[in-house]
Amino acid sequence: MRIAPPMQTAEQTSPHPQSIHGLVTPSLLLDRSKLDRNITRLADHARQLGVVLRPHMKTAKSIDVARRVFPDGPGPITVSTIAEAEYFASHGYRDMTYAVGLSPASALRAMELCARTGADLKLLLDTVEQADALAAVREASGVVPSVLIELDVDDHRGGLKPDDPKLIEVAGRVVAAGAKLLGVLAHAGESYGLNTPEALIAAAESERMATVRAAEILRAHGHACPVVSLGSTPTAHFARNLEGVTELRAGVYMFFDLVQHGVGVCSKDDIAISVLASVIGVKPEKGWILVDAGWMALSRDRGTASQRVDQGYGVVCDEAGRVIEDVIVSQASQEHGILSIRPGSGKAMPDLPVGTRVRILPNHACAMAAQHGFYSVVDGEDAGIEARWERIRGW
Amino acid sequence: MRIAPPMQTAEQTSPHPQSIHGLVTPSLLLDRSKLDRNITRLADHARQLGVVLRPHMKTAKSIDVARRVFPDGPGPITVSTIAEAEYFASHGYRDMTYAVGLSPASALRAMELCARTGADLKLLLDTVEQADALAAVREASGVVPSVLIELDVDDHRGGLKPDDPKLIEVAGRVVAAGAKLLGVLAHAGESYGLNTPEALIAAAESERMATVRAAEILRAHGHACPVVSLGSTPTAHFARNLEGVTELRAGVYMFFDLVQHGVGVCSKDDIAISVLASVIGVKPEKGWILVDAGWMALSRDRGTASQRVDQGYGVVCDEAGRVIEDVIVSQASQEHGILSIRPGSGKAMPDLPVGTRVRILPNHACAMAAQHGFYSVVDGEDAGIEARWERIRGW
Repeated sequence: MRIAPPMQTAEQTSPHPQSIHGLVTPSLLLDRSKLDRNITRLADHARQLGVVLRPHMKTAKSIDVARRVFPDGPGPITVSTIAEAEYFASHGYRDMTYAVGLSPASALRAMELCARTGADLKLLLDTVEQADALAAVREASGVVPSVLIELDVDDHRGGLKPDDPKLIEVAGRVVAAGAKLLGVLAHAGESYGLNTPEALIAAAESERMATVRAAEILRAHGHACPVVSLGSTPTAHFARNLEGVTELRAGVYMFFDLVQHGVGVCSKDDIAISVLASVIGVKPEKGWILVDAGWMALSRDRGTASQRVDQGYGVVCDEAGRVIEDVIVSQASQEHGILSIRPGSGKAMPDLPVGTRVRILPNHACAMAAQHGFYSVVDGEDAGIEARWERIRGW
Repeated sequence: MRIAPPMQTAEQTSPHPQSIHGLVTPSLLLDRSKLDRNITRLADHARQLGVVLRPHMKTAKSIDVARRVFPDGPGPITVSTIAEAEYFASHGYRDMTYAVGLSPASALRAMELCARTGADLKLLLDTVEQADALAAVREASGVVPSVLIELDVDDHRGGLKPDDPKLIEVAGRVVAAGAKLLGVLAHAGESYGLNTPEALIAAAESERMATVRAAEILRAHGHACPVVSLGSTPTAHFARNLEGVTELRAGVYMFFDLVQHGVGVCSKDDIAISVLASVIGVKPEKGWILVDAGWMALSRDRGTASQRVDQGYGVVCDEAGRVIEDVIVSQASQEHGILSIRPGSGKAMPDLPVGTRVRILPNHACAMAAQHGFYSVVDGEDAGIEARWERIRGW
């Protein structure tokens, strides 16, 4: 078997300019002031509601971003991959929840990480098969797994309904496997499809009621259930009462995006990341301007396609980040984006000569950021680059 | 300005198992025999048609894959980013075409690469503004840019129509800027929307006729136009006559994917890449099985959504790569995929217990591969991993 040595990627060897004018395009920008504002907003809200905020690092995947959330040192976080857990553990994070259902192999890898680093990486499951597998994981790793049972509060994905008899059965099997049952975890993923404050407030309350109910059922069956965890960026912001809940999770709130704008959680001005792109062609007869940011830089995410306002592959701003009204990325191939006027707008396409630079706001911040190896950190309309922040990929 | 040092990603430090059973999931697999068969098929076709094949490296982005195409040493290639050009230049490739319209900044970076390495990186443009910018690029780099004019043969994206008077104007401005006009380049991107041999043969002939016509117009105006370049994976395979054409370009043909299967260019068995995933949950009441491959591993590409058969986020195979009939990834979130039976199928969902491993075929190979840092190279149904091949990202 031939194994290639680790290599420096183009991203790692590319120059580090002091201004965005010197950046290779396409490049991912992160506005530090907007990031800080978004972080503070949800932290304040969680404090007012009396719950711990356990931010999800799946969006930022960056120790430098985590340091803006936890300036005084590591705090509780959520991760979407074991690679994220390993990365944050290497930076001193210990209290982590792996919010994806376990496979026997991932549970073993997680517990080996705990054994190696002293981290407390909580696992998620919703079947007796997963619970039963924990006995072997405990034996092989020498670590007692801490476990949350995944709840289904809105028919979104995985999880058990609070009143499903399997909830008690799974809880019993977790204990029988010699693992530690910590509590329950819900994610109101269907809230992304809502768009009025009333509906979002109701979804948050429904998420809370179902989650607390599951915890009460477990307690009635003798499980202490100290952790009652829920969250999604929309319901986290619209929750008015979190009685019975111990912690709130959200991830995309740090950056926000056009989907969250369409849901009604943020303004376009709150969106902290964008892709800097250059004009590389014009097709006046079609009303097209071509840029060097296609789906490789923007992602294929079309999350706004099902919303009231379809933002194509993203909203176009000038180089300083000011929205150019009604100009969107209407089509994307691998390294080409086509800018055009939003259908139905009466506006004319602005003149953007070849070489002009624009910023493109994301439909989905998690997906856009995932296409890039680092953030160039900026502040507002200033062209200066304050820092280059790493982010990780892979599993 | 604080600059982070280059880091090893999780991908680079993860273990290198000898069998796919030891791989962390999700993981990208590449079947070497299928790759070789696909490479040979188009190479033979190009040889029969008497044209040079200039494979597009935007799909594979891997020197190890390039070595399967060119076992005797570097040959002519196409790239979609300057980072690819830098990477392949570092491995000895010299004859490259950057098939994305230039910005003044990218043209300068390209010519600096040529000055540094002796590479001949051909540039693409379709406006007088881009042509005029070459004078400064030539002066700053000390390299005479080699230029192709981009043609629009099917209203797909950028480029000039062959009979657009701007074609002659742009050609004149390229020469006036002191650059070297090599010829014309077309990409029949609309061929992805076709699905009958007749339509594909006609599209290939239409691409040929328009491209050759543009070359003849340029020659009639005194430009030698030695390069007549065209291609897309569908038209490259369905071309029956390439008289007047000098070179053929295609990229996704090395791996193939479900979109190309839907177009009619390949069978499912020709698809050389897949994502290995693990079952992490079941929802029998909904007919769902959850796996740990979501859009982060599969990409958000839904290219088959507009085809006759919608393959969701991908077709599901067993761990050995045998298609499980009518099981597709029907939904995807960041790290979760939901497997279910294709709508309209009379089949029942198979029993796939937690921990079972499956392979998922891509809608779009370029997009799936882009989500991963390396290939685990396998051969057919054998579980052994022959090698781990690097791939690059970034710009």
